[in-house]
Amino acid sequence: MPTRRIAWTNPLRNPLDKRLPRIAGPAGMVLFGVTGDLARKKILPAIYDLANRGLLPAGFTLVGFGRREWSKEDFQDYVRKAVEERARTTWNEHVWERLAEGLNFVTGNFDDDAAFDAMAQTLSELDATRGTGGNWAFYLSIPPESFADVCHQLDRTGMAEAKGESWRRVVIEKPFGHDQESARELNAIVNAVFPEDDVFRIDHYLGKETVQNILALRFANQLFDPMLNSHYVDHVQITMAEDIGLGGRAGYYDGIGAARDVIQNHLLQLLALVAMDEPFSFSPRDMQDEKVKVLRAVKPVEPFELTTARGQYTAGWQGSEKVVGLREEEGFDAESRTETYAACTVEITSRRWAGVPFYLRTGKRLGRRVTEIAIVYKDAPHQPFTRGEIGSLGQNAMVIRVQPDEGMLMRFGSKVPGSTMEVRDVNMDFSYAEAFTEQSPEAYERLILDALLDEASLFPTNEEVELSWEILDPILAHWAENGRPDEYPAGSWGPPSADAMLARDGRTWRRP
Amino acid sequence: MPTRRIAWTNPLRNPLDKRLPRIAGPAGMVLFGVTGDLARKKILPAIYDLANRGLLPAGFTLVGFGRREWSKEDFQDYVRKAVEERARTTWNEHVWERLAEGLNFVTGNFDDDAAFDAMAQTLSELDATRGTGGNWAFYLSIPPESFADVCHQLDRTGMAEAKGESWRRVVIEKPFGHDQESARELNAIVNAVFPEDDVFRIDHYLGKETVQNILALRFANQLFDPMLNSHYVDHVQITMAEDIGLGGRAGYYDGIGAARDVIQNHLLQLLALVAMDEPFSFSPRDMQDEKVKVLRAVKPVEPFELTTARGQYTAGWQGSEKVVGLREEEGFDAESRTETYAACTVEITSRRWAGVPFYLRTGKRLGRRVTEIAIVYKDAPHQPFTRGEIGSLGQNAMVIRVQPDEGMLMRFGSKVPGSTMEVRDVNMDFSYAEAFTEQSPEAYERLILDALLDEASLFPTNEEVELSWEILDPILAHWAENGRPDEYPAGSWGPPSADAMLARDGRTWRRP
Repeated sequence: MPTRRIAWTNPLRNPLDKRLPRIAGPAGMVLFGVTGDLARKKILPAIYDLANRGLLPAGFTLVGFGRREWSKEDFQDYVRKAVEERARTTWNEHVWERLAEGLNFVTGNFDDDAAFDAMAQTLSELDATRGTGGNWAFYLSIPPESFADVCHQLDRTGMAEAKGESWRRVVIEKPFGHDQESARELNAIVNAVFPEDDVFRIDHYLGKETVQNILALRFANQLFDPMLNSHYVDHVQITMAEDIGLGGRAGYYDGIGAARDVIQNHLLQLLALVAMDEPFSFSPRDMQDEKVKVLRAVKPVEPFELTTARGQYTAGWQGSEKVVGLREEEGFDAESRTETYAACTVEITSRRWAGVPFYLRTGKRLGRRVTEIAIVYKDAPHQPFTRGEIGSLGQNAMVIRVQPDEGMLMRFGSKVPGSTMEVRDVNMDFSYAEAFTEQSPEAYERLILDALLDEASLFPTNEEVELSWEILDPILAHWAENGRPDEYPAGSWGPPSADAMLARDGRTWRRP
Repeated sequence: MPTRRIAWTNPLRNPLDKRLPRIAGPAGMVLFGVTGDLARKKILPAIYDLANRGLLPAGFTLVGFGRREWSKEDFQDYVRKAVEERARTTWNEHVWERLAEGLNFVTGNFDDDAAFDAMAQTLSELDATRGTGGNWAFYLSIPPESFADVCHQLDRTGMAEAKGESWRRVVIEKPFGHDQESARELNAIVNAVFPEDDVFRIDHYLGKETVQNILALRFANQLFDPMLNSHYVDHVQITMAEDIGLGGRAGYYDGIGAARDVIQNHLLQLLALVAMDEPFSFSPRDMQDEKVKVLRAVKPVEPFELTTARGQYTAGWQGSEKVVGLREEEGFDAESRTETYAACTVEITSRRWAGVPFYLRTGKRLGRRVTEIAIVYKDAPHQPFTRGEIGSLGQNAMVIRVQPDEGMLMRFGSKVPGSTMEVRDVNMDFSYAEAFTEQSPEAYERLILDALLDEASLFPTNEEVELSWEILDPILAHWAENGRPDEYPAGSWGPPSADAMLARDGRTWRRP
């Protein structure tokens, strides 16, 4: 009989015990777009939380850049307010004071040579006074139209160039283009100044605990992965549903739409993590190789009239609240064909997955806010039960709940108590919050720390981004040339065409 | 893309919708051993509960047989008291009155020809007055030493013989012998009078909801069965632990012991249900064929010095209660080598299971009362994680809790929330009581009704019983010839030799 053993990987390959959180070495960050929503609500609070958890170096330094005529003190006040409003960890005056010492602000526009010259000067001085060691991350929390200007300035002033042992990195936010061609152009602009290894594209979904847990569930366990293939899986549904509408974002959203905003990045990244083969290691290169491999194999299923669906929400009820339709949203062009609901069918042309449809859907003003991956299994190959005994039985499923109520659910048939055999679906539940006392760090904490640590595993590469557009582009082109989105009432689960899309395959969407 | 479908079995084969509980047709029962513990605590209350649930025919009739000089009214009073004390369903005077009308009593000994002649006469009269239609089940809730006498009397008086369309059945209780030879003799005695199809051997574990649910989980679902084989399973632990000691049963128990009392019947039946291949249907014949097939393949693993363990409990603490050791129990022979704890290792010599040890254990005065089947999976074939990341990770497991707290548990590794990758074991739980509002019927209700309905699927056949002894006999012979049981303190989880037995294989017992 074999004795119990674990096939450890060579400990020499990963000499550090990963359970001890690594602390970033000497570094600073330059933040473009400090007054934007993202900086205020996510980035600045996450930096404080990292500092509060002791994960930033003593001399960590943050330089804001913007048009405001702010003094260092003005910037400190602004950051303090953002942190007080949104930080996840409790307030610690001592931590704040140390962090505040490293806050600086440079005023200017993106085409203002003098301002960038001043910033280069500032960074040099800070390297001397704060011990940042020439290590700087440039966080572009700005519209992609400005990437070219900023990259040019960082290049012109020499700020993009690392000297000796030091490093320079750029952190960028989506949208990474609006189709494959524009994504290539954007990547070319960035990569002309920063080599791909120094580019960190933030897909904040990849910073979520439940998303990273997909790797743990699949590859640390024996239980799940052997059944993740076309022998056992009937289809997969990946859903990101929002209950909010466009609100003030209507102008920005017009021309983008749900597919570009969510499917291209979040949903295809979730798909890659669920469907990819085991990476040789979790090093960035090995992870990216596997994700690229599976994304290359993803093909949108045609004909798009039947395999995709899109919609625009109309007035309706969100719970007990009456909400307006898309066309009544302030700033939205009533003639716009931009979709607020998008669904599509893709297949993965590989031995593992061929024949298993992956249904992706996302939308605004849906029944409730939820992101989940539902793996729906085939029926048992044979049922020795009678129709009466299993008449109400659905398909087995494993549902990974990404947010909210993070966790996992398995649905399967169980005997109903009683003198006869009746099998009915039951749910078996695992809740992250109940299982662990540890608090989940915010996605931005994880990702900002990883960028400072040069841990690139959770950041999509230029290749992944371009491949994702390659998958989506034919669908977007079809939509552009054919008709307009269907309507769906706010608070519903999308347009009738979305239900028809699955009904055609004899399936139904899960009601999360 | 394939459309969703369920491969229904031919509905013509099972024309009845099994979800509607079937009601027994005209029938009566003769109960031998009415004053015993089993009749009073289980059988009589179960008959009332069945009547209360409307599952017995209007004219259902119960004839008690015993040495007491009881009138019909005395027997009615006795049954009423038993029902009032132990019935699961609420008291219903109307139901009781109807049931009481059908209660009769015949006084006599098992060697008393006149008494049995009187009973034969009584049954004929009842067929005429109660409409029992000549359908009688003889329930032998008596020591097996008396089976020969009773069977002889039933044969001599013609009561064992069904006329025309009517039926006669015998229901018997364990122990079904004390080794293969005695089991064969016992079966021969019974089968000389009742054909095997009319013999219903009660193993009350098979009447438990969670045991029947093993069939539903395995064969109505896609999820579990593909991983129930030697590719994925490291080993299986089947445990029936009792917290009680021998108490007043010490005299009866001496010479029997834990292996004969529990492993031979309950644990090997659980093993058969977990390990057997899919039956063609759940008809008695198909079920029994598969159970026999797997039991034939079960071999005890040698050398028994290392692969088995046995023990006798000594004084100790059961929770906060100080309890005496086995030798201090009233009526127990202090020199006895009868074990109160037994564990053994068996293998199943089949393509599906070869190389996967099944560890069976049972004992009295253990840590707590629990019966469970733990399927412990192999480690993932490869771990792309570092030792630090998965250092505390155990093996994946699926645990079917038979009693108490009926349900299922899956143990697997999940990422611990935090900025680093650490994978830790978590439990995902399914509770029968939480999932269903339906109440579970008592095992005896299910089994008595099944016997009246001629539903033999949950009753072990003579072949199964004899095969189970064939598995156990070599171990019992080894024990008889070698030494004596180890000691273990009451409230512990068995003797050190039981731990050593698994440690030798690099494994440990689950602490339920």
